[in-house]
Amino acid sequence: MPYRISRLGHVEIRSVDLDYYVNVLGLHLTGREGPTAYLKGWDERHAYSFSLTEAERPGMVRMAFRTVDPEDLDYYEKRFQTYSVPYDVIPEDYRRGRALRFQSPSGHTVELYYEMDYTGNLLPTVNPAPWPDGLKGIAPPRLDHTLVTAPDPATAIRFFQEVLEFRASEVLVQPDGTPIAAWLWQRPAPHDLAIVPGGAGGFHHAAFMIDTPEAIFRAADILARHHVRIDLGPGRHGITRGTTIYFFDPSGNRLETFGGYSAYQMDPDTQAITWTADRMTQGVSYYATELNESFLKVYT
Amino acid sequence: MPYRISRLGHVEIRSVDLDYYVNVLGLHLTGREGPTAYLKGWDERHAYSFSLTEAERPGMVRMAFRTVDPEDLDYYEKRFQTYSVPYDVIPEDYRRGRALRFQSPSGHTVELYYEMDYTGNLLPTVNPAPWPDGLKGIAPPRLDHTLVTAPDPATAIRFFQEVLEFRASEVLVQPDGTPIAAWLWQRPAPHDLAIVPGGAGGFHHAAFMIDTPEAIFRAADILARHHVRIDLGPGRHGITRGTTIYFFDPSGNRLETFGGYSAYQMDPDTQAITWTADRMTQGVSYYATELNESFLKVYT
Amino acid sequence: MPYRISRLGHVEIRSVDLDYYVNVLGLHLTGREGPTAYLKGWDERHAYSFSLTEAERPGMVRMAFRTVDPEDLDYYEKRFQTYSVPYDVIPEDYRRGRALRFQSPSGHTVELYYEMDYTGNLLPTVNPAPWPDGLKGIAPPRLDHTLVTAPDPATAIRFFQEVLEFRASEVLVQPDGTPIAAWLWQRPAPHDLAIVPGGAGGFHHAAFMIDTPEAIFRAADILARHHVRIDLGPGRHGITRGTTIYFFDPSGNRLETFGGYSAYQMDPDTQAITWTADRMTQGVSYYATELNESFLKVYT
Amino acid sequence: MPYRISRLGHVEIRSVDLDYYVNVLGLHLTGREGPTAYLKGWDERHAYSFSLTEAERPGMVRMAFRTVDPEDLDYYEKRFQTYSVPYDVIPEDYRRGRALRFQSPSGHTVELYYEMDYTGNLLPTVNPAPWPDGLKGIAPPRLDHTLVTAPDPATAIRFFQEVLEFRASEVLVQPDGTPIAAWLWQRPAPHDLAIVPGGAGGFHHAAFMIDTPEAIFRAADILARHHVRIDLGPGRHGITRGTTIYFFDPSGNRLETFGGYSAYQMDPDTQAITWTADRMTQGVSYYATELNESFLKVYT
Repeated sequence: MPYRISRLGHVEIRSVDLDYYVNVLGLHLTGREGPTAYLKGWDERHAYSFSLTEAERPGMVRMAFRTVDPEDLDYYEKRFQTYSVPYDVIPEDYRRGRALRFQSPSGHTVELYYEMDYTGNLLPTVNPAPWPDGLKGIAPPRLDHTLVTAPDPATAIRFFQEVLEFRASEVLVQPDGTPIAAWLWQRPAPHDLAIVPGGAGGFHHAAFMIDTPEAIFRAADILARHHVRIDLGPGRHGITRGTTIYFFDPSGNRLETFGGYSAYQMDPDTQAITWTADRMTQGVSYYATELNESFLKVYT
Repeated sequence: MPYRISRLGHVEIRSVDLDYYVNVLGLHLTGREGPTAYLKGWDERHAYSFSLTEAERPGMVRMAFRTVDPEDLDYYEKRFQTYSVPYDVIPEDYRRGRALRFQSPSGHTVELYYEMDYTGNLLPTVNPAPWPDGLKGIAPPRLDHTLVTAPDPATAIRFFQEVLEFRASEVLVQPDGTPIAAWLWQRPAPHDLAIVPGGAGGFHHAAFMIDTPEAIFRAADILARHHVRIDLGPGRHGITRGTTIYFFDPSGNRLETFGGYSAYQMDPDTQAITWTADRMTQGVSYYATELNESFLKVYT
Repeated sequence: MPYRISRLGHVEIRSVDLDYYVNVLGLHLTGREGPTAYLKGWDERHAYSFSLTEAERPGMVRMAFRTVDPEDLDYYEKRFQTYSVPYDVIPEDYRRGRALRFQSPSGHTVELYYEMDYTGNLLPTVNPAPWPDGLKGIAPPRLDHTLVTAPDPATAIRFFQEVLEFRASEVLVQPDGTPIAAWLWQRPAPHDLAIVPGGAGGFHHAAFMIDTPEAIFRAADILARHHVRIDLGPGRHGITRGTTIYFFDPSGNRLETFGGYSAYQMDPDTQAITWTADRMTQGVSYYATELNESFLKVYT
Repeated sequence: MPYRISRLGHVEIRSVDLDYYVNVLGLHLTGREGPTAYLKGWDERHAYSFSLTEAERPGMVRMAFRTVDPEDLDYYEKRFQTYSVPYDVIPEDYRRGRALRFQSPSGHTVELYYEMDYTGNLLPTVNPAPWPDGLKGIAPPRLDHTLVTAPDPATAIRFFQEVLEFRASEVLVQPDGTPIAAWLWQRPAPHDLAIVPGGAGGFHHAAFMIDTPEAIFRAADILARHHVRIDLGPGRHGITRGTTIYFFDPSGNRLETFGGYSAYQMDPDTQAITWTADRMTQGVSYYATELNESFLKVYT
């Protein structure tokens, strides 16, 4: 099967903390409509990748994956029919074209889309400098992935693999081989989506790319300067090798800086790495010797 | 068009410097057959990605791209027929399955293949550490891209775009818009292949991934310790933003450490960045104020 | 007062873990005598800076500071007499000349010495490379500082300031201004010695220099690979700005990698930075929002 | 001899490029008087460390070293008398107290002083963050060292060693052992002052601290963005191991970012490292295989 999904394209969460996202995390506000603010990292080329909708409680509203081609929507529409997955066709949304919307077995609203306004990144398209001047806060270049919870992870994981053709890069398994959690990819990167045990529709975190060890310390310095609650890190995940800081927005949503540093590149036939349950602590936090309770218990 | 090529899979060059590749560059020798030694980086999962064939003069023997699916070979076979591109079917090669072989207008032997022995990287597949112990030399995790010369770059670039469906990430153009050089991708990374002006079949360099600023200095320290001739760097390309060291093997082939640091991620519709000829110096070497003559004149 | 102490020259602790110090921490064994093994970092030029004496329980045996000149020993001998500090003259010790030995009010055995065998670092003295090949483990270039406990920190701090002329770089104070802890220097670096509340003669940690963000992650990777218990970090201290990993040897002694990254340089009149007790958490661990209980409670 | 000089305290050069120093190099303007602008790095605690005096040609006006104690001025005054070195007592200067001024055999105006207004760095003195927000340009924390030329380097080097008690960290020598150049220290760091062959009173460069590999690339990116002419680097010196970028201000004065990364720490008896003339190229630029002609020929 060829690659038909380009990347995680959009995560919408419930949060009232626009100022925090702009000045501490350092995303760029690209538009507002009703209760929703649309944001993106400085190196993203379409209209937005992250949005905040004002609400009384935190959590995820939806996640959306961008296809490689417009006709990949037709391809997936047929798969939904084949697998009897109910879906809606959303003709258009804010600065975006047609999308397919469905509920995953994990209890999340998921969309597939291709068209979104192409607005370019923050650099000129002729003879650009390598990074823009005047960035604020942590200023990640882009959204990287999201991790969500599912009451029955094995079923949710199988759904994304079978219907949407995600491949697994890493799997955490019970002694009998049952998957507890999986890291799933479409881009040839460690993951676009991960699923761990927890409540239906639960939002564990969205991650933004921060790619060097020094940038991780800088990010942590900025979080600490603003008295942001850091949940884990700076550190490294055993699973995905990714370097990480987990932290919270003031509304209680967990975010992550995820580092490409030492990241692997996937091939279509790359075999998934297995983590056994007795090494879950190191899988989540490679430097820890005691389980970070928060990892499995706190989500929104 | 969906993504049908996973990556640059194999570069074969003429070199008698196996010891250098193993102990200074730090590739892993995975096999020998006749006059050819097969090598790979520590994080590559198939049998080899780079090979050295003993010969009296340096240069490239061939480059090969790995498809995403086995049936992508059929897809490209049809395209060769459509575009009247002569090709051979190579039933098998060293630890590799069926391949299509053709001559590009740039004068290079190019292959497409899918099957190669899957041997895993140097880490265990269960509960792995993030990197293997006991690496030697620079020890890049993997091959990244190659840059070759063409007598008529515009024609060669168009061939890879039209027939093989490469997309351009960056283009260096004459004032009238004619492409002088192009950086072409299939992975959603800055490039898998680049083409610059020069002789037919010319080999400018093959690049291996080195992904952090400190690792670049470490690589340069290792090169200097072994009295390797450094052509450029440590530095940064304006084009691709990639951090770089250009250096030579003792046979005279140019190699590169290419850094993912700050690298961008491509979308299918990402518009190519344009570099104008008057800024070619900064495009090649962002920190330079004078043209590095060697860049356009020295290749093998 | 001119600078009369060059640096913390030697820390001797009780530990049975020589293999750990050589293969995980990566110190170099330079000699053994009786129950004691003598070690140093690869960039240290005298015979040793750290020693391990076999014993049934962990903790510090002694710490020693090297003077700038031989005659500084006479200078300090007079000060001991002036301040009525009892001391012994130790004519010689393992590969070391005359020393003054005394008990500090913190309950530690402290020595001053000048002469020690000059054996050079691990690089040649003519046309050296920047770092030696073949290092093992974390391989810090040198010992940096030690932090000890005192039942009455204010008295101990005053003693080191008045009698030995240490200057304070940072002080943690009660609301009434009483010092709870102090970071004291002789080299123009953040500290050579720090004193915090705790038992008499208590050893909190000895720190070895690791100077870049990437080297910190590498050090943590190595610790995790060897299942070493990490107490804190990778992180940053608010106090001294130093980047840090706290971890334990198998005998239970705490060690640190301390990073010069962003470190300040002292002048003789540099005013001490004040940390207020309500910000002690950030002073110890700048990224933490909850006190690391272990910091004040665990020492040997 | 105890350490009596704390550091290189002040370099005054002829330059009309205040805007460049503030916005590209990122020094802080702390005062102006007549044709002179006074500047410092963000982590320096006294009134200034670098000054620019408007003039028709570039070059050094003077360099000044700060003593450890006020009475060290008396100590050096006696040494000047002992060695028959003519000197002036300068009762006061801009925000500075008494100084001794003399001509070195290299043809430079050199001063020793102790008193200068203590104004603090750009961080609060209570519970500070590790770095200030809102820095511009490269923003080095402090001045590090200067390198000057002398028609008879051996004589100039001997003068600084004998009269001012500098120690040599590294020496470049002729085959017969005659020093061609020397790197001299008072702080226990690689150097405060270096002397190479060239005209009387010549100014080779002043260096500002940039301490990590990533910060070096960031500095080079900023220089390139502003079209600053880079003379060498990013790279590493064999001599001092220091990482470096040499570049020019618009008036033609050479500046450097000098990296503490991997820097060594000196002891009073540390033996100087010797570089032989045949390895001068690697001593100056460890990654080069051909001599950078500019190093010995271009100075102001």
